[in-house]
Amino acid sequence: MTASPGSPGIRVAVVGGSGHTGGEACRLLLNHPAVAEIVPTSRTDDPFERVHPNLLGSGLEFVPVEEVVAAAARFDAVLLCTPSGEAMRLAPLLLDAGTRVIDLSADFRFPDPERYRAAHDREHTAPGLLGEAVYGVTEFARDRVRTARLVANPGCYAITALLGLAPLLGTGLARPDTPLHIAAVNGTTGAGVTPRTAIQHAEVVGSLLPYNLAGHRHAPELEERFAQLAGAPVAVDLSTAHGDFARGIHIQASVQLRPGRRDGVSRESLLALYREHYGEGSSGEYFVRVNDQPSLGGPTDKDYGRFPHLAAVAGSNFVHIGLDHDARLGIARVVAVSDNLVKGAAGSAVQNLNVMLGLAETDGLLGYGL
Amino acid sequence: MTASPGSPGIRVAVVGGSGHTGGEACRLLLNHPAVAEIVPTSRTDDPFERVHPNLLGSGLEFVPVEEVVAAAARFDAVLLCTPSGEAMRLAPLLLDAGTRVIDLSADFRFPDPERYRAAHDREHTAPGLLGEAVYGVTEFARDRVRTARLVANPGCYAITALLGLAPLLGTGLARPDTPLHIAAVNGTTGAGVTPRTAIQHAEVVGSLLPYNLAGHRHAPELEERFAQLAGAPVAVDLSTAHGDFARGIHIQASVQLRPGRRDGVSRESLLALYREHYGEGSSGEYFVRVNDQPSLGGPTDKDYGRFPHLAAVAGSNFVHIGLDHDARLGIARVVAVSDNLVKGAAGSAVQNLNVMLGLAETDGLLGYGL
Amino acid sequence: MTASPGSPGIRVAVVGGSGHTGGEACRLLLNHPAVAEIVPTSRTDDPFERVHPNLLGSGLEFVPVEEVVAAAARFDAVLLCTPSGEAMRLAPLLLDAGTRVIDLSADFRFPDPERYRAAHDREHTAPGLLGEAVYGVTEFARDRVRTARLVANPGCYAITALLGLAPLLGTGLARPDTPLHIAAVNGTTGAGVTPRTAIQHAEVVGSLLPYNLAGHRHAPELEERFAQLAGAPVAVDLSTAHGDFARGIHIQASVQLRPGRRDGVSRESLLALYREHYGEGSSGEYFVRVNDQPSLGGPTDKDYGRFPHLAAVAGSNFVHIGLDHDARLGIARVVAVSDNLVKGAAGSAVQNLNVMLGLAETDGLLGYGL
Amino acid sequence: MTASPGSPGIRVAVVGGSGHTGGEACRLLLNHPAVAEIVPTSRTDDPFERVHPNLLGSGLEFVPVEEVVAAAARFDAVLLCTPSGEAMRLAPLLLDAGTRVIDLSADFRFPDPERYRAAHDREHTAPGLLGEAVYGVTEFARDRVRTARLVANPGCYAITALLGLAPLLGTGLARPDTPLHIAAVNGTTGAGVTPRTAIQHAEVVGSLLPYNLAGHRHAPELEERFAQLAGAPVAVDLSTAHGDFARGIHIQASVQLRPGRRDGVSRESLLALYREHYGEGSSGEYFVRVNDQPSLGGPTDKDYGRFPHLAAVAGSNFVHIGLDHDARLGIARVVAVSDNLVKGAAGSAVQNLNVMLGLAETDGLLGYGL
Repeated sequence: MTASPGSPGIRVAVVGGSGHTGGEACRLLLNHPAVAEIVPTSRTDDPFERVHPNLLGSGLEFVPVEEVVAAAARFDAVLLCTPSGEAMRLAPLLLDAGTRVIDLSADFRFPDPERYRAAHDREHTAPGLLGEAVYGVTEFARDRVRTARLVANPGCYAITALLGLAPLLGTGLARPDTPLHIAAVNGTTGAGVTPRTAIQHAEVVGSLLPYNLAGHRHAPELEERFAQLAGAPVAVDLSTAHGDFARGIHIQASVQLRPGRRDGVSRESLLALYREHYGEGSSGEYFVRVNDQPSLGGPTDKDYGRFPHLAAVAGSNFVHIGLDHDARLGIARVVAVSDNLVKGAAGSAVQNLNVMLGLAETDGLLGYGL
Repeated sequence: MTASPGSPGIRVAVVGGSGHTGGEACRLLLNHPAVAEIVPTSRTDDPFERVHPNLLGSGLEFVPVEEVVAAAARFDAVLLCTPSGEAMRLAPLLLDAGTRVIDLSADFRFPDPERYRAAHDREHTAPGLLGEAVYGVTEFARDRVRTARLVANPGCYAITALLGLAPLLGTGLARPDTPLHIAAVNGTTGAGVTPRTAIQHAEVVGSLLPYNLAGHRHAPELEERFAQLAGAPVAVDLSTAHGDFARGIHIQASVQLRPGRRDGVSRESLLALYREHYGEGSSGEYFVRVNDQPSLGGPTDKDYGRFPHLAAVAGSNFVHIGLDHDARLGIARVVAVSDNLVKGAAGSAVQNLNVMLGLAETDGLLGYGL
Repeated sequence: MTASPGSPGIRVAVVGGSGHTGGEACRLLLNHPAVAEIVPTSRTDDPFERVHPNLLGSGLEFVPVEEVVAAAARFDAVLLCTPSGEAMRLAPLLLDAGTRVIDLSADFRFPDPERYRAAHDREHTAPGLLGEAVYGVTEFARDRVRTARLVANPGCYAITALLGLAPLLGTGLARPDTPLHIAAVNGTTGAGVTPRTAIQHAEVVGSLLPYNLAGHRHAPELEERFAQLAGAPVAVDLSTAHGDFARGIHIQASVQLRPGRRDGVSRESLLALYREHYGEGSSGEYFVRVNDQPSLGGPTDKDYGRFPHLAAVAGSNFVHIGLDHDARLGIARVVAVSDNLVKGAAGSAVQNLNVMLGLAETDGLLGYGL
Repeated sequence: MTASPGSPGIRVAVVGGSGHTGGEACRLLLNHPAVAEIVPTSRTDDPFERVHPNLLGSGLEFVPVEEVVAAAARFDAVLLCTPSGEAMRLAPLLLDAGTRVIDLSADFRFPDPERYRAAHDREHTAPGLLGEAVYGVTEFARDRVRTARLVANPGCYAITALLGLAPLLGTGLARPDTPLHIAAVNGTTGAGVTPRTAIQHAEVVGSLLPYNLAGHRHAPELEERFAQLAGAPVAVDLSTAHGDFARGIHIQASVQLRPGRRDGVSRESLLALYREHYGEGSSGEYFVRVNDQPSLGGPTDKDYGRFPHLAAVAGSNFVHIGLDHDARLGIARVVAVSDNLVKGAAGSAVQNLNVMLGLAETDGLLGYGL
């Protein structure tokens, strides 16, 4: 099921093209070397280039979603950038027509209807597809993605936390009987495009906007996946806020190390673990990069440059990871940053698309951050 | 030792007047109804109003610190806004001359030289004063501040976290055998005024700047004080970063509730506990305000407005506290915000000054945030 | 018509209390030493302290505007912080009931119905009051404000530009036959509180948002008032944008100097002119401050500190003015900054209120910026 | 002098690789399809990936500039991202060795030593090269760039203003006897990397930082080039400030239209002029895009979306241009935005490099903004 040789190029539909994630998918696909056609859908009356002023001159125009559904067979893949609940309605229609589907919403992120119901408090309307959907952290599921018809693209908090903490979970370094504590700050593009008072510029600037402190709906998604990595149940204390930036997700996690495993642990040993886990250079995971800068000699700047920097991944598909070791408390503190619209959404989707179509995994995703 | 009736007003020296904290002390004192004279000191050649452009037209001018030391007796109090190590040199001279001292640095925050050495890795040069210094969270130590000669003003992280978590610690609700997890974001004024690359504007904007992840030097200060509140040792996992704002400290804490005490706990019960702890209205703690806004009916905005908002305390001496209860994990998530230069530094100092001089505690501090 | 001695204090209603300007009026009045009662009105169902989280704990609550109209006589003054068109409906009712009115909207800023119609393209419904309304740049109209029943508070662009350029206009230094070029950047509080896509945080952050480039509706207001200062018609080229900040108005103006008057002009001579115009120290205009910092010797920082700094007036009622002289082009470049919600709106209103009630003009307005 | 077919790829040295512009050149070259080797130089001891955290994992390392000079012949081109004065020292050495030079500093932007001296107040040390250097606004000088050995890359203000106003200047629509008024706001990357107080984050956030108001050193560069476009002398009133963003240059210009040419002028006619000037679609200038969005029907959002949006070009090589017509004053107001580090510096340099080497002009530059 690769993009057939000699074809004039890949055709991709982006359902929900007027949202932040849909627009970002279009931005990435516009520079994808193998993509010949991009069809964004939306119900808005506003022209595409007004909704996405960064794509001025791209020539893209919205079509109704019905046009995509009716002609689904002509698309190599359809990205669903829709609100929750919409993908489970559309995916069966699209798959039946023979196209591949990458769902960027939360609809297919749980492996069975019971867990979906528990997390989302409603019934799934396409339960038969839940078992088939591949949870698409590409780095962890490359082989399954390759042959998937339906990929459940991970949430932005989830993918950043999973990549940021996998080496600690997978090796049993993390203490299993206490929650992982994850404080996450997300850009305001994560709040959606519907205008509302709380997200007006004047309300957010110079501030942080905590939310969902009774329990974030992505915590169960994280626990589900962390448990797979750890081979045991994991509790996740996820504390979330929006920050005064548009893009990006910044995660600062405190992981208590297993008492019997703390000997010899240091910043350096933990960094070595991460480098080994993700590989380095041409054999490594291209999109996961570990900041292992040494301490500088100077008295003042020495600390800041050793941790990832959110703005440094803006616009890119990279996750940057850094960490330190609090020997007094036996805690590893991990910082992981990504662009919530790229690696946290549309970039991962394109990465999965590349794998599904037999293209180079980095096609269209090589750009560095700003 | 009150300000004598009929006096022409209070005279205050601000040593280290060219830093952010020193400038803020001047800003507050300029509008203090009982203050007649403010004398800031600095070694800089730059004029006061250039260093502090917000005080344009105030007429203040820097003098050498030696002038203040030589004339210490004529000041009702001296605020030390100096780098660590300087206050322990100056305080004995100033106290000997008969003035009161409020130290905004970390020099007098530990009750004995051993704990100071453990936290700061150097010897204290005025150990005889450590026992006398009153740790000045005014709300907790009002009576001792009233008669103090020397007040150790708390750190900005510490005072915000202490006020934010005291009701949980003091009542034994917090589980004692696991760390308090505190993720704190501080404005860049917290990084000082010495120019350095990492704090240049272009490096911080749109980002978060994690630091001190091997263990923040304020963690032991917090543990010292939390232990007093809890009556037992407390471990504090303090994870810090600078955010893309100049002022403010935003704390998001996860506190595991003691298993035997979780029955009946809810957001409402926790809010009631806080309201009771700090009082309400005219009998309450003026500067500590609990956000107990109910959930709104609307589907979208309902959550954001129930938590404190950093920008809302900018320029003010208030701490705003909000919280929620994660029933699934048995965790209370607490958000506490303050202006790191006001309640976190100069405002608390003025509050303590007021108490020491027998003035109304709110004098010069009534202003609401922006 | 002063606040009667022995009275328990001033009573003020703030109509339109849920907007940015109305909330700011409440913030200032809450710390006003002579104000005993503040009654904000709004039609919103949200509680006051949720709409204005900075005023948490203030205890204020919204009432319907009808309650204020029905009891107008018991208020010493009513501030109208309403959308355009509403003040001309309410002012006659309030004035008839015997209270004073300060209108912060654009309804009463033109002296006759024809000019109002030309600027706003609709009929005025209370034309009989236009002649009576005093245009309230307090510094220019103190005596008329003192006895006014109805004050038209100036727009934020207008008052900042008028105070910033008056010394050049009034002395004939500005060339009369070419427009004043004013590039103004306003905070997003200037865009109102109605949620809309263009002002969502994610759309504004890191950007500037130009608007009204076919001609800003405040340009005629400016021309009307500049003409009074200059004694001749003045054309104003006003170019506007919102910037990535909540509060503040930053004006950068280029004023071509009259060819016959350029001899001997220098930065220093222009600064002297401004200092003379506004006075200095206790005899000067308290809220207008000129930045006349000299160039420093250093090679790099020397220039920045000589001009006003927007953040330095945040929250305050000050206008800071700086300038330089481009000798090559014969142009004076003037920078004037204010807080659009304070000196540009609610602060000026309180300043006018103080004058109308015979109070000290600076009452409630002494605070410095941040 | 094209990149020879069959060659293993282009080799480029970036002298001054630790500055913002040098780092940006590396970012773009890292994704350039024809570039095989990038050699950045710097005197700093800090590792490349610490100085440019966005390029984490790129593997680039600094070498001393002397290494590049000694091996100049092996580079297809050298980009000089050096402080003023350094390029005129290095360019002769590099050209003599047979490589091409693109200078991103101001050293070669004037065609003769007299005009250089007038603008920069010092002697040029390589005056013999001034006549040869091609001023590289690629869109205006493509043919001369193609055969150039030495390209003087334009300043960021200059290229944005030139592209933004060329259609008005070249057609004689702009009134010649009065200055062009250009208010420009530049990101703080434009202030360089040397740490200094005025550019510390806490000093800039929430503010604007005016500078060089006695006359910006780029004004003569602009006048030189505008005069070429207009065929007559042009005066430029350039008013500059840094804004609270890292990247980007936002220009808002007021151009008085020639009185005899105002008939029939409208926003639409001006937009048509711009579209004709720059072409559209595949025959148009790829990097110059005109925002001609119509007014929307809604009462509130209708205006904002019709003008360029600074953040929308971040990271890209595009200039977005929008405008409106103030019929009352006979003024065209033009907004032009670019990324000061890309189209304003390194992107233009790569664009020129592509032309000089016979590559596709858009190679490595296709990316859209964020």
